Amino acid sequence: MGTNLKKKPVNGMKDIMPREMEIRDYVTGVIKETYRSFGFTPIETPCMEDIANLTNKQGGDNEKLIFKILKRGEKLHLDTAAEESDVVDYGMRYDLTVPLSRFYANHANDLPQPFKALQIGSVWRADRPQRGRYRQFTQCDIDIIGEATNLAEIELISATTTCLGRLGFAGFEIRINERRLLKAMAAYAGFAEDAYEDVFITLDKMDKIGLCGVRSELLEHGYGDAAVDKYVGLFSAVAEEKDVLAGVRKIAEMLGDALDGEVADSLCEIADAVNAAKSCDFTLVFDPTLVRGMSYYTGTIFEIAIPEFGGSCGGGGRYDGMVGKFTGSDVPACGFSIGFERIILLLLEQDYNIPESKEKIAFLIDKKFPKERLAEVFAQAKSTREEGKQVLVVRMNKNKKFQKEQLEAQGYAAFCEFFADDNR
Amino acid sequence: MGTNLKKKPVNGMKDIMPREMEIRDYVTGVIKETYRSFGFTPIETPCMEDIANLTNKQGGDNEKLIFKILKRGEKLHLDTAAEESDVVDYGMRYDLTVPLSRFYANHANDLPQPFKALQIGSVWRADRPQRGRYRQFTQCDIDIIGEATNLAEIELISATTTCLGRLGFAGFEIRINERRLLKAMAAYAGFAEDAYEDVFITLDKMDKIGLCGVRSELLEHGYGDAAVDKYVGLFSAVAEEKDVLAGVRKIAEMLGDALDGEVADSLCEIADAVNAAKSCDFTLVFDPTLVRGMSYYTGTIFEIAIPEFGGSCGGGGRYDGMVGKFTGSDVPACGFSIGFERIILLLLEQDYNIPESKEKIAFLIDKKFPKERLAEVFAQAKSTREEGKQVLVVRMNKNKKFQKEQLEAQGYAAFCEFFADDNR
Repeated sequence: MGTNLKKKPVNGMKDIMPREMEIRDYVTGVIKETYRSFGFTPIETPCMEDIANLTNKQGGDNEKLIFKILKRGEKLHLDTAAEESDVVDYGMRYDLTVPLSRFYANHANDLPQPFKALQIGSVWRADRPQRGRYRQFTQCDIDIIGEATNLAEIELISATTTCLGRLGFAGFEIRINERRLLKAMAAYAGFAEDAYEDVFITLDKMDKIGLCGVRSELLEHGYGDAAVDKYVGLFSAVAEEKDVLAGVRKIAEMLGDALDGEVADSLCEIADAVNAAKSCDFTLVFDPTLVRGMSYYTGTIFEIAIPEFGGSCGGGGRYDGMVGKFTGSDVPACGFSIGFERIILLLLEQDYNIPESKEKIAFLIDKKFPKERLAEVFAQAKSTREEGKQVLVVRMNKNKKFQKEQLEAQGYAAFCEFFADDNR
Repeated sequence: MGTNLKKKPVNGMKDIMPREMEIRDYVTGVIKETYRSFGFTPIETPCMEDIANLTNKQGGDNEKLIFKILKRGEKLHLDTAAEESDVVDYGMRYDLTVPLSRFYANHANDLPQPFKALQIGSVWRADRPQRGRYRQFTQCDIDIIGEATNLAEIELISATTTCLGRLGFAGFEIRINERRLLKAMAAYAGFAEDAYEDVFITLDKMDKIGLCGVRSELLEHGYGDAAVDKYVGLFSAVAEEKDVLAGVRKIAEMLGDALDGEVADSLCEIADAVNAAKSCDFTLVFDPTLVRGMSYYTGTIFEIAIPEFGGSCGGGGRYDGMVGKFTGSDVPACGFSIGFERIILLLLEQDYNIPESKEKIAFLIDKKFPKERLAEVFAQAKSTREEGKQVLVVRMNKNKKFQKEQLEAQGYAAFCEFFADDNR
């Protein structure tokens, strides 16, 4: 063996085996087919971006996890290099949103308005490797750029839920909230504007620490009793109100002038339309505690919760500021990222059976089968394939019984054997 | 605009626009479907490999073109770094064969024997950017590992030609040769064994400089007149003999004992079987001048020549030594790489129409259409999609005529308009 060759994939990344690939290909097919039927068009961008585009504070903590590309040839001066930025020009993308924004800025004149993009691609994050989380993984995003109204939200949620339904998921929730509602609640309670982000970080822990935990943590952070109690009171009041229309109306009434009426109306319109166009069994749920980490969201935010999972299985929202960083003028944008890797993991664990599979036949050729008659075997394989079947042509092993068992495990249900003597 | 954000993709890489993506997705679908019917199973490996695996002299000149990944965190010591290898741990793969060999070495026990792999993925080469050649591009390889006999060659050629046929190509050639035949011809002519590679580099230029050119260059390189003339004579003798059986038999007769009879027999068996299982219009052609650059080939080599193109549109061969570099013991292997990017380019230039496309309908919603009735529109969009149609829901623009023209250019053939007043 070569002295220093490595058999394992690089640390934290994985080889994808045939069984998993079969599921991944199937899921990718369903996703593309479904999103296309909603008018989303696939695009692709390079896996590398200029390092400046990736370190622009839009990516939050992900910017600390970038795999960076060494400069090449004359551009590299290792001897005089003082810091990383001296030796690096590109980085591997850590999401598909930054590249999409650049793509849109580069090609806006050649794209439909609004532009409905579908991206399925690898992203890289040099996270600490851990079970089930990899440093290269697939993201699957749909985005609508140039649509300021809630048509965008409605289409994104309808398309994503239709997709999940076609993949066999049922009984899941889409949780919805609004950044502007979050802010109005904080304002109403009396927090200072520059404290909002800190308050939301605590609020985001609701799932884990509960309302009491949120209350204690806010007090620990030094916020006044009055503000904290008023804030917590809002959430208590609608804690049982999962219906979007009822929940939003109730909160809007409590907030009064602190909330722009348009925000509540829009959430209700989204709920009406999404429910009217429902194509599978899910519930759209109002969740005033939903924060979504990334700070670039400006309006509606949403998240998929599948009961089989603990956490979120995808999410998204409106980010009207991001594209403008590239174009120079603000462009409305809204996106939904479906949790591709989590879906694959779940289907693998369920030992998912792919619906439409071809009949599989194995042709076994005995060692003594005359070489000059090989052509007949391949002609027969050809016509069998033309009948729509999958045909594997292999040499017959000495231990034929074992070989057939192995082939059966791969889904080959029929065998056709070729011996030297036709009468055998 | 952000001070230093770049709108363009990084140098030498490209954004893929909707029209091209549509063709790429279609071609990928045909390829996967076809290769699956031959029993190839898709796999994937990470886009990065340990730098040691990529710089093992297997990749020839491609090893000079690797995009390298900077070490991260505590592993990076820029201050004491003397050379590239001090600051780099991974590299972007430059082909799919090295990763496949590593994959096979890592998982052989869990894979079918023989293992028929299908890989479609991006590779990266920091080549000088030029028209039509990009630094990130897609390769599409099928490989059979663990099959020592020419069943492998037959299946690879049959599968690849079937694929090209389904994509609408006809009248193309598959050129075939054998490394051992190449060597026997050089031996027969009297070249020393250590001169073979140099002789083959000149022979490889036959397309461009012709037989006379090859003769002159060999003489310039200082080889003796007798050897050069004997060598050139072999090629003259079979120059018109494109039929594999006739050509190989003729050469074998001239070479006599210099050629292992098994080499000629095997080429003829391959030709017989491939021709018997032909599923589209192509010719298998004997080309004793075919060299294929990569030095890792050990037996049969082949190449696709499509008349619409100047050069090759894919190729492959047997490389029985490569996998053993990882496993420690030799494993027979044979692969065929279809020229994915060239096929896409050709189909784009031909303004290719994708066979099966959905009917596309655009729903246009007037600005005055009442918000409380949006739900009806989306319910109708849903049922239309369930009929198998593609439905785009958008706001109606002021300039509706222009908007419809734009939509028609995107393939939307029918329109459904929603106004405030139903009777309009």
